[in-house]
Amino acid sequence: MPSSTPLRFVVAPSGFKESLGADEVASAIAAGIRRVVPGAIVNSVPLVDGGEGSARALAGATLGKVIDTVVTGPVGKPVDSHFALLGTDGPVTAVVEMAAAAGLSLVPRDMRDPTVTTSRGVGELIRTALDYGAERILLGCGDSGTSDGGAGLLQALGVRLLDAEGLELGDGGGELTRLDHIDVSGLDSRLSPGSGVEIRVACNPHNILCGPGGVARVFAPQKGASSTQVEILSAAMDRWAEVLERDVSTRPAGLNLRTGPGTGASGGMGAGVAAVLRAELLPRFEVMLDHVDLDSLIATADLVLTAEGSIDKQTPKGKIPTEVARRAKLHGKPVVALAGTIGLDARANYDSGIDAFAGILPSPVELVEALERGAEFLTDATERAMRLLLVGATLGR
Amino acid sequence: MPSSTPLRFVVAPSGFKESLGADEVASAIAAGIRRVVPGAIVNSVPLVDGGEGSARALAGATLGKVIDTVVTGPVGKPVDSHFALLGTDGPVTAVVEMAAAAGLSLVPRDMRDPTVTTSRGVGELIRTALDYGAERILLGCGDSGTSDGGAGLLQALGVRLLDAEGLELGDGGGELTRLDHIDVSGLDSRLSPGSGVEIRVACNPHNILCGPGGVARVFAPQKGASSTQVEILSAAMDRWAEVLERDVSTRPAGLNLRTGPGTGASGGMGAGVAAVLRAELLPRFEVMLDHVDLDSLIATADLVLTAEGSIDKQTPKGKIPTEVARRAKLHGKPVVALAGTIGLDARANYDSGIDAFAGILPSPVELVEALERGAEFLTDATERAMRLLLVGATLGR
Repeated sequence: MPSSTPLRFVVAPSGFKESLGADEVASAIAAGIRRVVPGAIVNSVPLVDGGEGSARALAGATLGKVIDTVVTGPVGKPVDSHFALLGTDGPVTAVVEMAAAAGLSLVPRDMRDPTVTTSRGVGELIRTALDYGAERILLGCGDSGTSDGGAGLLQALGVRLLDAEGLELGDGGGELTRLDHIDVSGLDSRLSPGSGVEIRVACNPHNILCGPGGVARVFAPQKGASSTQVEILSAAMDRWAEVLERDVSTRPAGLNLRTGPGTGASGGMGAGVAAVLRAELLPRFEVMLDHVDLDSLIATADLVLTAEGSIDKQTPKGKIPTEVARRAKLHGKPVVALAGTIGLDARANYDSGIDAFAGILPSPVELVEALERGAEFLTDATERAMRLLLVGATLGR
Repeated sequence: MPSSTPLRFVVAPSGFKESLGADEVASAIAAGIRRVVPGAIVNSVPLVDGGEGSARALAGATLGKVIDTVVTGPVGKPVDSHFALLGTDGPVTAVVEMAAAAGLSLVPRDMRDPTVTTSRGVGELIRTALDYGAERILLGCGDSGTSDGGAGLLQALGVRLLDAEGLELGDGGGELTRLDHIDVSGLDSRLSPGSGVEIRVACNPHNILCGPGGVARVFAPQKGASSTQVEILSAAMDRWAEVLERDVSTRPAGLNLRTGPGTGASGGMGAGVAAVLRAELLPRFEVMLDHVDLDSLIATADLVLTAEGSIDKQTPKGKIPTEVARRAKLHGKPVVALAGTIGLDARANYDSGIDAFAGILPSPVELVEALERGAEFLTDATERAMRLLLVGATLGR
């Protein structure tokens, strides 16, 4: 490597779930780089995908602020929650992370039944964000513990979901099988058509509401649903789409609620907010990377480092390292990924722009120790990877 | 890397204890290299240090043969054993691996008491090797389960160890505390002074017989000794040196039996064979690498790969990767080490010529799984390391 000009690194990692936030991952990697290349220029861009930790991370990245508040949790009891107000210019922008009000980690293990958990708290966060003057809301999906199609969220904002007797439905996706009609007349006026408040939903476009690849069948089991409950939720999502289409006259034209990209996001919340709030369902990285300078930093980098808790066959399906690699390849930059765990068929990642990856585990350890010592393991592993790169550099000369 | 001339690799690994022989380690690494650099020239030089597996490995490397035989095991019962006759020109050379007759793995876990285990079987191997016409014996140390100063070995060759009543001592290092005098008159005549049979002992020169750094204190605990037994063995080794010095008039002049390099090898066997058989105590790699072409292959290599079951703070103290690195550095070649486990203070290895190292574990696994899947893990890890080298090569251009 030329010693005259310092090497430039972009460190753009995901967080390591249950171990390290994206910012902590970035710091640990930067420390490993500096052990080997002390004069390196390291630009850290901790990345989030809309799931757990996204609101805090974007507040931090934009010098905005985090607003703490209490909302109705997914099992109906109050939970400590928060949203972010970004420090960016332009319209007042709030980041509402659905996981902060209805995330799976907020559902006690013995209560994980997505036929009854509710997204109501997410609607309460939106209401509070509007109270704070939000003109634009970025709604982060991912890590949800609900499968109610966003019904609870809409109820919290004044929408009435009624059964055949005209009685309000209770909480949870299971109730939607009894849905007879929807009354949107009570919707918070700050969100009525023409109000000017823009809601952008950061979705994984692969998630759709109905059918064999629909959200109930694909994700409800992870949220604790039995096979019977999966069938109930699948029917509920069908019914939800049917009644939304019939009763919500203001829904955007051309929107396919059943199979449109992102309609299944966060237990079908995508469909609900798209239909009633005319929220835009956008690829999550388009929304979440709007406020970081990733592409221009990549353009001037010598090497891009990314990381994820697990590198495996799911990684190419829209996970952060793959998105980073995609963008790096547009600039022809090499990409190295660090991984807490190297999972099944991880080699598939070599085909999606990740040039090399390295695991962080030094020895046979229990998962709990790996999680606890994540930062230390990551710094040491980065050092090892950097030293291999340096050996390679001497071969390349 | 220049595409015109193929890259040349030397793969010179140790075996991974309880998992893979050195030859299997070399094959697994070579497979990983070829995944990334299909046209590479890979020279495999599986290395042994005199311990478990050394006789078979050297027989294989020199196209010699392995002679199977049954000897008295370390707890007095017959065990299947073997030695090697090398396929080299010159004097008929046998490799007698002490671990094959008195190794720790031959001592059942509930019988691990080095005050009673014996090296008698090693003497029986030497006798059989002489029956096969051996003119030179390479005696490999390491992985021993005994601490008898080589007393049993010498008894098997006709030496009498007597107590104050003139009765023959029983088995084990503990008996040496009762040693009164030594009678070498019955020594196998093929080993008497002037017989011309040369015995070269492959030792770790750090191992010495007596004192605070002596073999009883440093190694007997690993072989199952209690602290009381350590004290007994420590006194026994002192007595052993004292009587050998007094009674063995033919011992080499200038040999310090108590603190000479290698006198403590294999539970003090070094001292016994040096004093009575005039065996040379040599640094193990000088003996064990005599029959492989390591240095000349390194001279023409682009990169040297080595490996060990564990890379840790012990590695710089004369383990195989360190020896390989030392030799590679004489030729200015970069060295990368693969490690089953990265242990405590492994970074110390960066100071002893290993430029980079990489662990092989992909995810939190049990040790037993890591041992079973060693070859697969090693090939995948080599691929990952090679890909990092290639990324580095593009940076170096």
